[in-house]
Amino acid sequence: MTQGEILYSGKAKTICLSEKPDELIVSFRDDITAFDGGKKDQLQGKGASNAGVSAFLFGILEESGVQTHFIRMEDPVTMRVKKLSMIPLEVIVRNRAAGSIVRNYPFTEGHYFDPPVVVTDYKDDTRHDPMINDDIIVALGLLTHEEIARVKASALKVNLVLKAFFDGIGLELVDFKIEYGRYGNTILLGDEISMDSMRLWEKGTMKSMDKDVYRFEKGDVMEAYRTVSARIFGSR
Amino acid sequence: MTQGEILYSGKAKTICLSEKPDELIVSFRDDITAFDGGKKDQLQGKGASNAGVSAFLFGILEESGVQTHFIRMEDPVTMRVKKLSMIPLEVIVRNRAAGSIVRNYPFTEGHYFDPPVVVTDYKDDTRHDPMINDDIIVALGLLTHEEIARVKASALKVNLVLKAFFDGIGLELVDFKIEYGRYGNTILLGDEISMDSMRLWEKGTMKSMDKDVYRFEKGDVMEAYRTVSARIFGSR
Repeated sequence: MTQGEILYSGKAKTICLSEKPDELIVSFRDDITAFDGGKKDQLQGKGASNAGVSAFLFGILEESGVQTHFIRMEDPVTMRVKKLSMIPLEVIVRNRAAGSIVRNYPFTEGHYFDPPVVVTDYKDDTRHDPMINDDIIVALGLLTHEEIARVKASALKVNLVLKAFFDGIGLELVDFKIEYGRYGNTILLGDEISMDSMRLWEKGTMKSMDKDVYRFEKGDVMEAYRTVSARIFGSR
Repeated sequence: MTQGEILYSGKAKTICLSEKPDELIVSFRDDITAFDGGKKDQLQGKGASNAGVSAFLFGILEESGVQTHFIRMEDPVTMRVKKLSMIPLEVIVRNRAAGSIVRNYPFTEGHYFDPPVVVTDYKDDTRHDPMINDDIIVALGLLTHEEIARVKASALKVNLVLKAFFDGIGLELVDFKIEYGRYGNTILLGDEISMDSMRLWEKGTMKSMDKDVYRFEKGDVMEAYRTVSARIFGSR
């Protein structure tokens, strides 16, 4: 394996080896997809927007004591990260009901969850990322019960930090999806945190400022992404 | 509401009011269905077979300290039970991998779970009984976290008792589905425990002796049901 070799190409990011064995280079592409890749487009500036927002949010999480894979930005679409052994789980935290939880259970769109609801999905596109529970996570050997408790506590802390941050810039953090990976003996927050992986609503309305604009053709998705990005970077 | 009035008619049982306000009469019909009712038949003797097995298993569970709704049999297809306020959850305990868990996750059919895996599904045919987790159960107001822990502990005790019992008659308890309901301040085991709601394999083989014979047309389902029933009643 050599520097620059593509390790993995996902739906919106490409992961390459770096010159260091324990670091990777993540390129945020302009691709946007939805519905398990059933809907696909390229949107100029989308990669830079998500990369910048992810880097910023990893930064405020690190300041709050959440350990992440983020090292630094190499350029506006390229992030240097610690090389994690990814755990194939999506950890979803929900403050209000939207998306699949409204389809699968009798919650009204926008229902407030207090306390927030944590859900885990098994990352497997061929199986459409089915929900998974603690016992099955342990049976698959992905995490121990003790590690699951630590990951969920981390996800709830991420929620507290991000919810307060977005509230300060007029946005409501409805829900988000994060992923974790092993790094030596620790488990770090990996992947990205962006408008692709969060639901954000204009405070006081239920106006989407996230990938739902793209999924459900609610308007100009890049305008929404640029607005969120501008508010985030204007906040400091 | 008067005695004999039908309170609820399910896919294989009819629930009627009794002369007492806190007791119900459950009639086990000869109907058998699979795949959310997509496959349906009538099989002579099936109601009596399931009623008898359920009554017997509720009996050995009560002897082991598991509280159930069972009062007594009124006739071979008619069970008198305590009137529960049912909790719309299916509590599934799996000792080996079969069915949906093999489709949804990378387990080989027959994989041994040690410890057993407990899964909860939300009972809602229109939503195809989606898997549900503890946080969502609490958010829907179905159970508190403390009650979930008690229900899961009860389900694991049911598993221990039934697994040992079936082992003694040459059958392996692969998995089963049970349902609970509120009765005053207590939560009791309700519904039924029969070849419709368990997977049983001939010990040492993976030969189905349960509703999978019907689901997947593996042979004469009533022969399997009669065999299980005969072994159960021959055991005492």
